[in-house]
Amino acid sequence: MPTHKKKPSIIKNKGLSLIPLGGFHEIGKNMLVVEYDDEILIIDGGMSFPSIDMPGVDVVIPKFDYILENRHRVSGIVLTHGHEDHIGALPYLLRQAQFPVYGTKLSLAFLEIKLREHSLLMDSKLFEVEDDGVYKIGDHFEVCFVPVCHSIPDACGLAIRTPEGVIIHSGDFKFDQTPVDNRKMNLGAFARYGDEGVLAFITDVTNVMNPGYTGSERRVGVAFKELFKDLTGRIFVTTFASHLHRIEQAIDVAVELDRKVVMLGRRMVDYINVSRNLGYLDVSDDIFVNEENINDYEDSDLLFLATGTQGEPGSALRLMAENSHQVQIREGDSVVLSASPIPGNEAHILRIINQLTALGADVYGPSHGVHVSGHASREEIKLLYNLVKPKFVLPFHGEIRHMRDFANLMKKMGHPKDNVVLGKIGQRIHITENKIKIVEKITSGVTMVDGLGVGDLDGAILNERKALASSGILVVTVFVSEKTKKVERVELEARGVLYFSQHKELLEKSEIILRDSLRAVKESDYIEYPKLKEKAEDKMRKLFWKYLRRDPYILTNVYEI
Amino acid sequence: MPTHKKKPSIIKNKGLSLIPLGGFHEIGKNMLVVEYDDEILIIDGGMSFPSIDMPGVDVVIPKFDYILENRHRVSGIVLTHGHEDHIGALPYLLRQAQFPVYGTKLSLAFLEIKLREHSLLMDSKLFEVEDDGVYKIGDHFEVCFVPVCHSIPDACGLAIRTPEGVIIHSGDFKFDQTPVDNRKMNLGAFARYGDEGVLAFITDVTNVMNPGYTGSERRVGVAFKELFKDLTGRIFVTTFASHLHRIEQAIDVAVELDRKVVMLGRRMVDYINVSRNLGYLDVSDDIFVNEENINDYEDSDLLFLATGTQGEPGSALRLMAENSHQVQIREGDSVVLSASPIPGNEAHILRIINQLTALGADVYGPSHGVHVSGHASREEIKLLYNLVKPKFVLPFHGEIRHMRDFANLMKKMGHPKDNVVLGKIGQRIHITENKIKIVEKITSGVTMVDGLGVGDLDGAILNERKALASSGILVVTVFVSEKTKKVERVELEARGVLYFSQHKELLEKSEIILRDSLRAVKESDYIEYPKLKEKAEDKMRKLFWKYLRRDPYILTNVYEI
Repeated sequence: MPTHKKKPSIIKNKGLSLIPLGGFHEIGKNMLVVEYDDEILIIDGGMSFPSIDMPGVDVVIPKFDYILENRHRVSGIVLTHGHEDHIGALPYLLRQAQFPVYGTKLSLAFLEIKLREHSLLMDSKLFEVEDDGVYKIGDHFEVCFVPVCHSIPDACGLAIRTPEGVIIHSGDFKFDQTPVDNRKMNLGAFARYGDEGVLAFITDVTNVMNPGYTGSERRVGVAFKELFKDLTGRIFVTTFASHLHRIEQAIDVAVELDRKVVMLGRRMVDYINVSRNLGYLDVSDDIFVNEENINDYEDSDLLFLATGTQGEPGSALRLMAENSHQVQIREGDSVVLSASPIPGNEAHILRIINQLTALGADVYGPSHGVHVSGHASREEIKLLYNLVKPKFVLPFHGEIRHMRDFANLMKKMGHPKDNVVLGKIGQRIHITENKIKIVEKITSGVTMVDGLGVGDLDGAILNERKALASSGILVVTVFVSEKTKKVERVELEARGVLYFSQHKELLEKSEIILRDSLRAVKESDYIEYPKLKEKAEDKMRKLFWKYLRRDPYILTNVYEI
Repeated sequence: MPTHKKKPSIIKNKGLSLIPLGGFHEIGKNMLVVEYDDEILIIDGGMSFPSIDMPGVDVVIPKFDYILENRHRVSGIVLTHGHEDHIGALPYLLRQAQFPVYGTKLSLAFLEIKLREHSLLMDSKLFEVEDDGVYKIGDHFEVCFVPVCHSIPDACGLAIRTPEGVIIHSGDFKFDQTPVDNRKMNLGAFARYGDEGVLAFITDVTNVMNPGYTGSERRVGVAFKELFKDLTGRIFVTTFASHLHRIEQAIDVAVELDRKVVMLGRRMVDYINVSRNLGYLDVSDDIFVNEENINDYEDSDLLFLATGTQGEPGSALRLMAENSHQVQIREGDSVVLSASPIPGNEAHILRIINQLTALGADVYGPSHGVHVSGHASREEIKLLYNLVKPKFVLPFHGEIRHMRDFANLMKKMGHPKDNVVLGKIGQRIHITENKIKIVEKITSGVTMVDGLGVGDLDGAILNERKALASSGILVVTVFVSEKTKKVERVELEARGVLYFSQHKELLEKSEIILRDSLRAVKESDYIEYPKLKEKAEDKMRKLFWKYLRRDPYILTNVYEI
């Protein structure tokens, strides 16, 4: 082998690289590899919801191939916060390889809930970090966990000192000047790093297209009070179970109005209990009432905290809307949707609103001020950028429309075009003091989880599901005589296509056509009968299109008898 | 038969009734039967888009059973305007029974396009009406077509004089004080009927939850001008092909900026051509350029009008986004989405925005002022109500949340509670001078259209499609010996479930379990083998759930050989 042609691959990847495994050109499954020489640091490991193209898929996680192939080089995983799109994929990774995980107390607590569900908690190595604490991870990384405000407590941005320079990762953030827990964003830290000199800035751009500033979370507390004080029936508030500041404000108003609080939904109970145990929710036991005991109270004495902001099947809100929950919605109830729909869920949520209304409830949503975003709007992104004053900028937590909009913003702010990189999943983005460059593609992509199967589905299976969904399936069974090799019999079954009883002519035509056209089977076609199958499928496809303009999936089996 | 127990059914339905067949407790497929004694007048006949529960369904129309059973009593159909949700079902009705249709010129022209597609135009009886014209239809109805403003020209409200009193139907309306065509809503007419005394008022409540007033359509023209003047590349505007005022304003700005206009999409071409022929669009030939000739022009000289506001498959916008249109989107292009997403379409439209952005286009949407609604906001609904001063009120064009909100509004406005009726599809709402009452249910509901099949799908077939979509299908074929009645052979096929090659253990287990458990077939079970099938399905369901937590549809066929 001519060795002189061998590429110096080790040298090419020397120095500092960023490799997005998720969360770039998409919203969801955030995961970023930071690499220096032979050492790897991983930021977050999140899941996302299946897209409209993935029927039957439960969750989507990043492809871990690169990490697993280089597992001996991984020094650790650092968490920005405990949302599903930042920690939800870790159980799937950690059951294949053990890595130490660094995060704030609550982020780890929420990860622990997940690891316990996957029976992985025993083996895991979780290291709790302090706000503003600096941790040496491996030989080349020094990570500072800088407090930021977000729709979950204990959220952090990251300042990662590498031999090449400092990387600032915003985490998911907003500038809340009056956070509910008074844990403010450490502006000073970002400014300090900015003054020192920041090599690369990776920033949340989800809300870059929203002008101005995102409102403080406290606004929601004010809106709750304003709304709840006039309500005389039962109040149901639905929000993310991890949104403890929202939950705390709802509970505070409940206490003020002499209402008891009922938790509905497993995740709501789990998260509230864990958070209370850790001191993130300072509420006494006696304000809670068990679901079973609600009949001991007047309607005006109760406030429910329920899961199901996105209308998820099995969530408390969905079950109540479908009138299949133990707690039945009725005239006089008020339901407060304290969340925005995730794109794709709008129709489901509108259906739930209608169902709740039909049961007699008054429904209040974001237009009543009961929700604010947890992400920075345009002005806040500009502000953080100006604090950090980076050499290179990489937007994350955005689809391409957000990333392009951010690139335009950077242009307007005078940032050199070549120093803004809209990274993609699987790209190795190599960074030196003077240059940022995409140097190679690594194995990356999407792993779909369906039930217990992780990664066993692919596009072909999804296409089968989509075809089955839109027009059903026609199962054609052809019996060929083992001796004569002639077609003896043809059977037809349809599911999701039509009732043959209503289309008798079509059924008769189908049987005639199949029999006639399949009688002669060529000798070369024996054993697997591919031509026979092809012919049957072609005939049936044309017939169904002509008669019904329908295009069912056709499955043909040929059996020798 | 004891005749004395026979109910006096003829007398019960004497007088005036309203029977909604669609458009009540839903947005879409508007159709209302007005009945006086033995005479029927039909208002509109619209279609709707399939809900999230209807995979593979093309369109949804009202069930016509009541109309067809009483076809000899129908005096005619009156149209409020030419939108799909008001005329789209008529071809399906008129091919079963011929009724005269009354409408303004453009409403009929758009209906004609549809009738021609269904080869029904020759047989149809279409009567053009004048604005404010009064038409006697049958013995008991006198209908006045009162001009209103909406997102299509020639829209009308209806004043229907019956022997019992006057019914006012708002049509789809808004108060546009500066309509593009200067055809203003006839406020005087509504006031006059109000002063005379209105028995029942049926009003559009789609936007009742929007506070204030809907903006004038002219605002969009201003926004177009403001936006387009700074754009130097090609401009693509997508809007509903029937929204001629929107189209006219886009063309006017194009002409002003020396741009030629290119129509993309069959429906855009059809509607614009028909509208020009009828004088609804006064633009000269020379401003249009054919799609084939666009390369003769500079980018800055072109404006495209394209179909596909809702991301419909096959529409110009969708094809361009997927890069499979002859006109290819590229860097420098601007795409203007001059429409709002219909709930359920958001995710598709966001995908298209991302696809267009990835191709290099800048995308502008409603947040840039390039869309206003065609429906009245809360204050306008209040205003029309106060003009009309009705005895009884019935909201239409709303889901239950809109209807309930409207009922609350009526309460605040002091309207007696018993005089507000939230009608449902299939209810006969009987109205006398003093009383409004739901007296019976007639056959009604939803007819699904899939390809050429109209009404041949039902919930069971849709449930099959949904089951197939979420987990695929497992086809189990069992061969039983004709002589011994023993199971001889078992075959398994899966589509949309898994690859057996990746789950060999599961495949082996399946085959063993099926063979073992099916060996003994009881004599009582011959012929159809129901117990054999049941057993096979039960075994397979449990096995797949245990191994994969998947629940495929299982189709078992038993064949004697």
